Amino acid sequence: MLSGLAVLSGVTMSSVTLAQKLPSEISLMPEPQSMTRGSGELLIDPTFKVELDGYVEPRLNLARERFFSTLSRETGITVWKPNDHPAELRIVTAGASKPVQQVGEDESYHLEITSVGAELKAANPLGVLHGLQTLLQLVVITPRGFVIPAVTIDDAPRFVWRGMMIDTSRHFMPMETIERNLDGMEAVKMNVFHWHLSDDQGFRAESHVYPLLQGKGSDGQFYTQEQMKKLVAYARDRGIRVVPEFDMPGHTTAWLVGYPELGSGKGPYAIERKWGIFNPAMDPTRETTYRFIDRLIGEMAAIFPDAYFHVGGDECNGKEWDANPRIQEYMKQHGFKNDAALQGYFSSRVQRMVAQHGKIPAGWDEILQPTTAKNVLIQSWHGPQFVTTAARQGNDVILSKGYYLDLILPAAEHYMVDPLGGTAALTPEEQKHVLGGESAMWSELVSTENIDGRIWPRNGAIAERLWSPAAKTQDVDSMYRRLEVLSQHLQAYGLQHASVYPEMLERMAGTEDIQRLKVLGDIVEPRKHHERTQHGSYDAFTPLNRMVDAIPPESMQAREFEHLCARISAGTAMDAERDQARELLTLWRDNDALLAPQLGASSLTTELIPVSSSLRVVAQTGLEAFGYLESGKGKATAEWRDSSLKELQVAVKQQAGLMLMVVGSVRELVMAASASMDSKPN
Amino acid sequence: MLSGLAVLSGVTMSSVTLAQKLPSEISLMPEPQSMTRGSGELLIDPTFKVELDGYVEPRLNLARERFFSTLSRETGITVWKPNDHPAELRIVTAGASKPVQQVGEDESYHLEITSVGAELKAANPLGVLHGLQTLLQLVVITPRGFVIPAVTIDDAPRFVWRGMMIDTSRHFMPMETIERNLDGMEAVKMNVFHWHLSDDQGFRAESHVYPLLQGKGSDGQFYTQEQMKKLVAYARDRGIRVVPEFDMPGHTTAWLVGYPELGSGKGPYAIERKWGIFNPAMDPTRETTYRFIDRLIGEMAAIFPDAYFHVGGDECNGKEWDANPRIQEYMKQHGFKNDAALQGYFSSRVQRMVAQHGKIPAGWDEILQPTTAKNVLIQSWHGPQFVTTAARQGNDVILSKGYYLDLILPAAEHYMVDPLGGTAALTPEEQKHVLGGESAMWSELVSTENIDGRIWPRNGAIAERLWSPAAKTQDVDSMYRRLEVLSQHLQAYGLQHASVYPEMLERMAGTEDIQRLKVLGDIVEPRKHHERTQHGSYDAFTPLNRMVDAIPPESMQAREFEHLCARISAGTAMDAERDQARELLTLWRDNDALLAPQLGASSLTTELIPVSSSLRVVAQTGLEAFGYLESGKGKATAEWRDSSLKELQVAVKQQAGLMLMVVGSVRELVMAASASMDSKPN
Repeated sequence: MLSGLAVLSGVTMSSVTLAQKLPSEISLMPEPQSMTRGSGELLIDPTFKVELDGYVEPRLNLARERFFSTLSRETGITVWKPNDHPAELRIVTAGASKPVQQVGEDESYHLEITSVGAELKAANPLGVLHGLQTLLQLVVITPRGFVIPAVTIDDAPRFVWRGMMIDTSRHFMPMETIERNLDGMEAVKMNVFHWHLSDDQGFRAESHVYPLLQGKGSDGQFYTQEQMKKLVAYARDRGIRVVPEFDMPGHTTAWLVGYPELGSGKGPYAIERKWGIFNPAMDPTRETTYRFIDRLIGEMAAIFPDAYFHVGGDECNGKEWDANPRIQEYMKQHGFKNDAALQGYFSSRVQRMVAQHGKIPAGWDEILQPTTAKNVLIQSWHGPQFVTTAARQGNDVILSKGYYLDLILPAAEHYMVDPLGGTAALTPEEQKHVLGGESAMWSELVSTENIDGRIWPRNGAIAERLWSPAAKTQDVDSMYRRLEVLSQHLQAYGLQHASVYPEMLERMAGTEDIQRLKVLGDIVEPRKHHERTQHGSYDAFTPLNRMVDAIPPESMQAREFEHLCARISAGTAMDAERDQARELLTLWRDNDALLAPQLGASSLTTELIPVSSSLRVVAQTGLEAFGYLESGKGKATAEWRDSSLKELQVAVKQQAGLMLMVVGSVRELVMAASASMDSKPN
Repeated sequence: MLSGLAVLSGVTMSSVTLAQKLPSEISLMPEPQSMTRGSGELLIDPTFKVELDGYVEPRLNLARERFFSTLSRETGITVWKPNDHPAELRIVTAGASKPVQQVGEDESYHLEITSVGAELKAANPLGVLHGLQTLLQLVVITPRGFVIPAVTIDDAPRFVWRGMMIDTSRHFMPMETIERNLDGMEAVKMNVFHWHLSDDQGFRAESHVYPLLQGKGSDGQFYTQEQMKKLVAYARDRGIRVVPEFDMPGHTTAWLVGYPELGSGKGPYAIERKWGIFNPAMDPTRETTYRFIDRLIGEMAAIFPDAYFHVGGDECNGKEWDANPRIQEYMKQHGFKNDAALQGYFSSRVQRMVAQHGKIPAGWDEILQPTTAKNVLIQSWHGPQFVTTAARQGNDVILSKGYYLDLILPAAEHYMVDPLGGTAALTPEEQKHVLGGESAMWSELVSTENIDGRIWPRNGAIAERLWSPAAKTQDVDSMYRRLEVLSQHLQAYGLQHASVYPEMLERMAGTEDIQRLKVLGDIVEPRKHHERTQHGSYDAFTPLNRMVDAIPPESMQAREFEHLCARISAGTAMDAERDQARELLTLWRDNDALLAPQLGASSLTTELIPVSSSLRVVAQTGLEAFGYLESGKGKATAEWRDSSLKELQVAVKQQAGLMLMVVGSVRELVMAASASMDSKPN
């Protein structure tokens, strides 16, 4: 009986635990600057009305429509019943924002909710957009219906640059994929979409001036100019700037397929199908190269109205330059000591062209030289030291190191990275050059199908880091609790991070019966950093349809189990917690026998047979440890401990690109079981 | 222990049972006319190539793209790797189909798959479209990867008219909602989309000639002419005709809001917000009415190229005519004995106008008079008797009675309804007038959110009835097995029938922890027929966000449990089946204690408290019955039986719009337990 209940509660333990904490807590992500609870709550019903006062523009009307549409998805209530009541929500906008959204515009808002109505005030539409998202996050279901709790909020961002980069070159992302992720960005108040449009594996922006860029460099997968303009407008409606990136002089193989004369090698070039750093690079010694770039920048600058224009500059390995006698001769003649100096020359010329087109150049760490113009924005993927150097030189800088979503790291790791972290050497004046940061979604291992699950909800933790006061972003447990709520909230925006996991499991299994497969999936994580691409034989054609592609980056169940085991090992666990841990271990141990027959039936699950079997072994060991901890018959023998640790050693070996996330916790149990009996609880 | 495993297997029992039967079975819906298994299988990998031979047109290229896109969603494999191999699939099209798709065109195809390649042959693109859908359904995951088993199929439809009607008036459905349902129709080879565009609750088609129709009759929720043309093209690409319906003279309240002079009452009129049959009706006595209709038909006939034009004609109650002295006078002068005669006059004039615009008129049963012109198509919502009458009169007829999806009936009920059922009195020649049938999705209780779950997968059973040979559509168990497979398959088309259920549960619960709520949801069904709207106080503003709106129409788990109990009561159950039933009963009994606290926390779940508690009581009774059946200590007492039956009587009472689907099965157990011990197994 007990065990029957246990399985149910065990499987969903993490969400149960979280849910129990929530009802009285207001869950916002990012946390606002200041918030005061009032008493009572505002009811949402079909007559809910929103009035626009003060300054009005079409974007505000669209925002109201979008508010209603999201509210309707959140609540299932369509808000449109005609009535003569005063509006429940009054939006007062003082004035317009800049025609093209600028860095550092006023994004603050003031929100006041009572049991009879709500008022949202902002200096301009940007604040209104943010305030509406806060409102949508405040909606909760109660015994009285869907309500917004009475609350007063004053809010404004800590950093002016809160961005996300999506690499649309390595895997092309259809418009709707980007659009729904912009919706997600709006939900967490991010304000820059950095669009990585070209790389070795594809040139994705339609050029009329150089049509072979997309014509030969994209496999037909590119954005038309009309689509790019549409996306800029879509982003502006959501308070998001769009910064395009055309990465050069390295990462340009796809350009060179159509225009080999731009390259430093012999050609012909073919679209790159592998992942990594490749040799092709533009020829920085020819004037024709600069004329080409200048015309392309001019064409693209007209499509992207943002003040910034990103020209990449990362990871040029210089091998084509080294191998080209003409370029070597040129370097000698012009006194370029090495490839870095040559790239420095190239970069500064490109930056000047960008400036001549009225744009502020942006680029990765590599473009920063002592002589780099002060108007250049540095995007740091190397971290604090580069941030410090840039800021000290007087260059604006944004941080991306620590925010790489493709590394599949726990949200907590991203969360604890601060744009100002490690920059203590800077003066307060210099620190002002640190404008914020950008998460980065490189797309070697994501397709349009699983990209949402790599971005969300973790990106919410980064968004909070960039928006909320530093003092309010120290509590990791609170972050995780709110991240879980955000995850559910984001489904109302059509994001597929949560739904794709079971759907991919069903495909793998060839049946809707995936409960046992999910028991396994729930406690494994994909390998971290670049381990998969380094050790695997991935290329652009590799299907991303395995367990490792389907599961969330982080096992919330493993995280909860770790907490349980820590308390158990420390002797501070309550009985219910010990029961919960034992039931989980039992579930895991018994899962293999039920799952194994299914695993053999599909080519996508056979690789999981040893993983499932490892889980059984680990769980069995955990249960044995439990037995010692509870039997009261003295501690486990050293012999048992050593053989157990050896088994765990085997189980920790990564298979199918997966990490079994419970091994560490079970090891802790084993150590506790073989330690002195004095530490046993009760 | 056992009980722990049991919960897992119990919860997903139905799918487990089905999945176990599948690997060797080819699961197609609709069943093809003839199919022969070959040996081996064709592998799907990123190099899979499709070649178009013979006649080619853009629609075939689009169909190939769509094939790749669905294949990619099915498999997670993007098929685009360039290669020089011969194509794996060769499509040979003999010639074109009609410029505007006609009733009765050749839709047959021939499909031959071996381990090295596949060939799809058809007389025209319509057959190709159907053949591609068959191919997509043949794809299965095996230990060797995704494959299409070697098979030879000859296929053609039994009926030429295989339609689905969607009512977009009572609840407006956005374009993408219709589009994804057309994708689903293509998947099951349906070929007519009947678009119910006007009714009392909304006029949804943009008219330039009479702009107040949508201007005052739609709350701004209508389809532009451009959108309607786009949908016609979208449907044609999928081998689907589009028949528009403008229902008159009743069901016209929304028309009269903008044009009250068309009405027979005093006006002013307001858009109807309730469900039911209402009094407003067009005035059949004025020539201005006919001029209006004529111009509107002319305008819409140009948008909808199909040969058929539906003018409704159902449920005109005549009350406005009865109350209007001028109309009464007119009837007297012209010798119309009653309202039906007046409507007959109206209908025949409208039919003539439709014909003058080059269209074949279609309408509901009510328009059939002895004098009705032979060119008029009758859509029967009354059933066989009307079908028989129409066919005998020489009118073509399609059946909808028995295919109303809004009645929330089991798929089996729809499945066993045949367009020729009950028409034995017809000669074979007369039977040819029965062109087929149409499922009908009236939208009182569906929104864009839950409509997919009302249509799919059940609509697949109707599609099969209309496509497959009568002899191949008698096995209900096979149908259910294949329906479950179809359900998963349809998710690759973006249909949300499966995903919406857990999402709506999460919203109701205000948390992602819905496992216990789902235990309850899995064994209840919505009330059937019109019971909800009759007994409830529903209107157009009522949120459709309750359990009754979220759950599938049919509890597959209850169906399986019923089968188990039947075998147990008959004494033919195996031990494993008895275990399974006992475990399910245990799960249900214990669920209430765990779920009840959650139910109280949300206004959307408080109504489920008594349902959950009833489930506990019923399950407890079932377990007691089990005890008697297995104890070997003699049969249960009459006293126990009577008190148990009384409890079940209480539990069967419908609450929250729901039916507890296990009561009947438990009653059977109770009866078995109190019957003679001789019937006890082993």
